[in-house]
Amino acid sequence: MVDRPITRRRLLGAAGAGALLAGVPAGALARRTVRHADVVVVGAGFAGLSAARELVRSGRSVVVLEARHRVGGRALNAELGGGVISERGATFIGPTQNRIRRLAKEVGVGTFPTYDEGDDVYLHDGKRSTYSDRGPTGTAPPDLEILGDIATAVYKIDQMARQVPVGSPWKASKAAEWDAQTLKDFVLANTDGNPRFIRLLEVVTRAAVGAEPQDVSLLWTVNFIAASGDEHHAGTFERNFNTRGGAQQTRFRGGSQRVAKLVARELGDRIVLGSPARRITQLPHGVLVSSDGAVVHAKRAIVAIPPVLSAEIVYEPALPASREDLLARFPQGTLTKVTAVYDRPFWRDKGLTGTAVCLDPPLGATFDDSPEDGSVGIVFGFVGGAAARSFNRRPPSERRAVALEGFSKLFGSEGLHPTRYLESNWRKQKWTRGCPLAYTGPGTLTKFGPALRKPVGRIHWAGTETSVFWSGYMDGAVRSGERAAREVLRRL
Amino acid sequence: MVDRPITRRRLLGAAGAGALLAGVPAGALARRTVRHADVVVVGAGFAGLSAARELVRSGRSVVVLEARHRVGGRALNAELGGGVISERGATFIGPTQNRIRRLAKEVGVGTFPTYDEGDDVYLHDGKRSTYSDRGPTGTAPPDLEILGDIATAVYKIDQMARQVPVGSPWKASKAAEWDAQTLKDFVLANTDGNPRFIRLLEVVTRAAVGAEPQDVSLLWTVNFIAASGDEHHAGTFERNFNTRGGAQQTRFRGGSQRVAKLVARELGDRIVLGSPARRITQLPHGVLVSSDGAVVHAKRAIVAIPPVLSAEIVYEPALPASREDLLARFPQGTLTKVTAVYDRPFWRDKGLTGTAVCLDPPLGATFDDSPEDGSVGIVFGFVGGAAARSFNRRPPSERRAVALEGFSKLFGSEGLHPTRYLESNWRKQKWTRGCPLAYTGPGTLTKFGPALRKPVGRIHWAGTETSVFWSGYMDGAVRSGERAAREVLRRL
Repeated sequence: MVDRPITRRRLLGAAGAGALLAGVPAGALARRTVRHADVVVVGAGFAGLSAARELVRSGRSVVVLEARHRVGGRALNAELGGGVISERGATFIGPTQNRIRRLAKEVGVGTFPTYDEGDDVYLHDGKRSTYSDRGPTGTAPPDLEILGDIATAVYKIDQMARQVPVGSPWKASKAAEWDAQTLKDFVLANTDGNPRFIRLLEVVTRAAVGAEPQDVSLLWTVNFIAASGDEHHAGTFERNFNTRGGAQQTRFRGGSQRVAKLVARELGDRIVLGSPARRITQLPHGVLVSSDGAVVHAKRAIVAIPPVLSAEIVYEPALPASREDLLARFPQGTLTKVTAVYDRPFWRDKGLTGTAVCLDPPLGATFDDSPEDGSVGIVFGFVGGAAARSFNRRPPSERRAVALEGFSKLFGSEGLHPTRYLESNWRKQKWTRGCPLAYTGPGTLTKFGPALRKPVGRIHWAGTETSVFWSGYMDGAVRSGERAAREVLRRL
Repeated sequence: MVDRPITRRRLLGAAGAGALLAGVPAGALARRTVRHADVVVVGAGFAGLSAARELVRSGRSVVVLEARHRVGGRALNAELGGGVISERGATFIGPTQNRIRRLAKEVGVGTFPTYDEGDDVYLHDGKRSTYSDRGPTGTAPPDLEILGDIATAVYKIDQMARQVPVGSPWKASKAAEWDAQTLKDFVLANTDGNPRFIRLLEVVTRAAVGAEPQDVSLLWTVNFIAASGDEHHAGTFERNFNTRGGAQQTRFRGGSQRVAKLVARELGDRIVLGSPARRITQLPHGVLVSSDGAVVHAKRAIVAIPPVLSAEIVYEPALPASREDLLARFPQGTLTKVTAVYDRPFWRDKGLTGTAVCLDPPLGATFDDSPEDGSVGIVFGFVGGAAARSFNRRPPSERRAVALEGFSKLFGSEGLHPTRYLESNWRKQKWTRGCPLAYTGPGTLTKFGPALRKPVGRIHWAGTETSVFWSGYMDGAVRSGERAAREVLRRL
């Protein structure tokens, strides 16, 4: 056997930059940029950008390392020409999402209401009906056969959401009981379990989580709902799921990524693009973060990327077992966003909002994503969880055909003839690994939840999954970044 | 923002060694050892060693990259002096574990029977009794109050094990139904669910999986039992759990790691120690594996490490989503092995085997681990799952005290006065991350199981978790390595 000799250089290097590039002589480092800052931030999504912005406003020096050649993370504008964009990821904001709203306002991005004039469409088993979201079920369809199940489940989950300490669900008095079951277990035990209701539930979790009702822990779900509010308004399913009065109520002029781009413009060359962080070494008085484009020496680090990606960084010393255990059980959802662009929003002429709840896969929930002036018509559908896995396996031409067929069943045959068709499979995005967020199955939060936000030495954790409120949303990302920045500022 | 310019060097380097050390000028590579071989094997546990040995026997050139400064993976001898060793990890083999048996024989390591003269001990709620493992329950205690539950659960699980295509449980006709529930769900629905029986079940899963009955998918469990056999003998719970006629029947002279060390001696300087693989790049006609100590260029790669560690390697191109999805839901068990060494195996004088089933934590199952000649007495206990997490949080002196108190309650007050006390927390081992194996919760195998062994381009997957038979055991590791070697040989 050939063992690597432990030379004096390696021993010396172990506490310094020499250890960053294992196996590479320290001399090689000189050719790589080494930067110094008070804080190094990993990730330039809304979490990392918000953290960096807060730190800079407090007079601290910051370097932001971003793996992609763009900022915005799960927010991405596709330019369609003529100033029209399609949001390929995060799209909406709503009441109590005050942090993303404030950030947008501060960088000068205005908002406008999601188009919501007319009726929503409900489709199941090929049967189509329309309904107003001003009714008691909001955006959920008032399907008489399953209305009892819907009302019971929503009522109970809203009640349970008031019983969890939001953001720390492992402290709930019933944490063990609720974390021992899945959302599906709970619903089957507490409703009539009408199969059509289960399909509706699947549409909800596929769009909101990118997972199936049997994938997510009940405790996780209840906290997700509890998080759909703020310090002054208890989270509810309605505020999460509705357009009117809920998280799909409002959109950004120019698209959500514009907010990120404008924050990035403020931060200027503090951001290093195309430079994934590979290794974080904790030193007695600082951290060294080695990335493809730069080595950064800083007093503290904020890691603001999805859990599964944060697990792929090499940490020296290793992370505590509880955090590794959490990261080993915290997968990203599976979500593909399919979008069709038309000459005009033809559904509006028919008195339709463009919002639909569709129980016939692959489409689940759909929304109008047209520009504010309605100059072209854009509608998108969420294909999530198991539906996305089947969908993603089909060849591109088939995917396009079934998606357009779905739009046409919901809104009319015009749906078959878009000027463009776009698809974003977030599961395949190397530097996101799945949308809309990471979730946990049964047993994880009660065992390992406390590691979610707990700093490890000089490393602090941000990212929408770590947010107390609106975890999984742009607002949660901003909150998490601002919170991590405050944590760091207290310790600098 | 500062973006990394895409220079000609980077473009050229992207398909070659230049991309291996992202950000490091290609010139630096010249100072690092570059080796060439037909096959590069990542990991020198039993899986990697067996793969390498098969390839060498077929005349192929091999380089084995091992992160640790030793071989053997989850098999580790601690030298106690005077030629006495204590096995800190894998210990036993049993009937139908023919591959590890053959390997040991070929390298000249003999076996001897696990000490099994006399009675086993059963302890619950401070009440101690003894029983012979020649009775109908084998190593399981014949506790009359829960005998019905034990018999029912074992009978049903053995029956179900015959209904899964072993190694490919996702193809079972009831795969969806069984993968939608945990082992605990199944047991509560199919037995009287006596709380003491549930505690016994916990002792079993904590020792065998390092997890709780509610952590593991029923489908995973049924396959684990189906795997407790070979091509000619259907797997059963009894063959898995028993000492007599089961997987704890036999031990290796000189300890299990001796087998690995002797295989490594055969392989000689093909093995590079202290050299964790960091990046695997697939080229048009080969693979490049970058490790801390060497860059290896080979025709094919075999990755023979635990799933969670294989997820931390950087793959270029990225792994298929289904494999990433599997790895994101495939945690290692949590297991600490506590061992006490005494002047003599005092329990034998009392007619005891040293085997115990203990429902009062932290100890679960215990076994006699003395050398063949009984010149000193060694007994160890498994502390697994939730019991291990509580245990590991206590200070070292407390851990020692409660472990010895446990041994004394089982075997007598002599247990309080060992000559040595040893502890191995495998969860904290950076290059294993948990023992005895990786498991899956509900919903993972049916969705992502097919990615378990499926080669990705020129990368083949070994490791005990990938084995059809005796997955989680030394035998499974050997089988997986030999199978991966055959896969590669067919394609070279």
